[in-house]
Amino acid sequence: MNEDAKKSALRMIPYGIYVLTAEGNDGSIAAATVNWVTQASFAPPLVVVGVKADSGAHSIVKESGSFVLNILGKGQQGMAFNFFKSHERDGDSIGGETFKAGASGAPILDSAPAWVECKLTDTIEKGDHSIFVGEVTEAGISGDLGEGRVDDATLWMKDLGDKVFYGG
Amino acid sequence: MNEDAKKSALRMIPYGIYVLTAEGNDGSIAAATVNWVTQASFAPPLVVVGVKADSGAHSIVKESGSFVLNILGKGQQGMAFNFFKSHERDGDSIGGETFKAGASGAPILDSAPAWVECKLTDTIEKGDHSIFVGEVTEAGISGDLGEGRVDDATLWMKDLGDKVFYGG
Repeated sequence: MNEDAKKSALRMIPYGIYVLTAEGNDGSIAAATVNWVTQASFAPPLVVVGVKADSGAHSIVKESGSFVLNILGKGQQGMAFNFFKSHERDGDSIGGETFKAGASGAPILDSAPAWVECKLTDTIEKGDHSIFVGEVTEAGISGDLGEGRVDDATLWMKDLGDKVFYGG
Repeated sequence: MNEDAKKSALRMIPYGIYVLTAEGNDGSIAAATVNWVTQASFAPPLVVVGVKADSGAHSIVKESGSFVLNILGKGQQGMAFNFFKSHERDGDSIGGETFKAGASGAPILDSAPAWVECKLTDTIEKGDHSIFVGEVTEAGISGDLGEGRVDDATLWMKDLGDKVFYGG
């Protein structure tokens, strides 16, 4: 395989930026910035997320069987970088971000402009990241998405910096 | 569930535009515009594609066990709209686009600036679209991706029109 071509081709896939959150059985919480996300069905509404296999978020999502994708908005670069690191729960906040529990218990970050809560339906554990399939069970819009296309309101990978990629 | 919020939140996911191609055992070819694509692992390099369950591409990918994601470039809106419709193979072209066979037989469209060829490793058939997981086995860059970010060279969903979405 042409490794350079593989890297460039895979980096051509555009991404938004999300904070994946979940609550473990002991009340611990994971919150991790992710970008490998796509919708995968209208009915039922399914989403797919690629999650690092050795991460705290991975084990907590598997344990709880549910998660929230908090969709970051334009200007929230700091929040994206913050959740590249792992943080411990501090009451009703994590990493300095307050949250409310969704119906599944998974945290919905107050400052994210939109979110979808999902029930984990399928898991494919095959690589350094696992594929989590979630059925959307609830969703909310917390912020003002503006007048234009709603995907323009999303924080994009390219907004994180000219040289920032996660893929390839 | 708040259906309006679900629709808006899912439409916040940004997408690139791809033509999924595959060759059936009888030499028939499918070529279909898709956008529900994400990488899902570095090692092995996995991609996930959501494909309409009742489409010709769906049955041909399942039959052949391999596919190519042809990544469209900026300015290729016409090609994207062309492959919203299905076309029959005409020798070494389909829908007016010439191709060469990849190692798996799946067509690599000559005018796509980049492509990845994949072996189908897993399939989740649960909704109106199925989730195909592919391991990237070969890749190529055919066009000039320019000097900037390579994802800026990709045709994005938003390039198809202010009101064009596939998701929600």
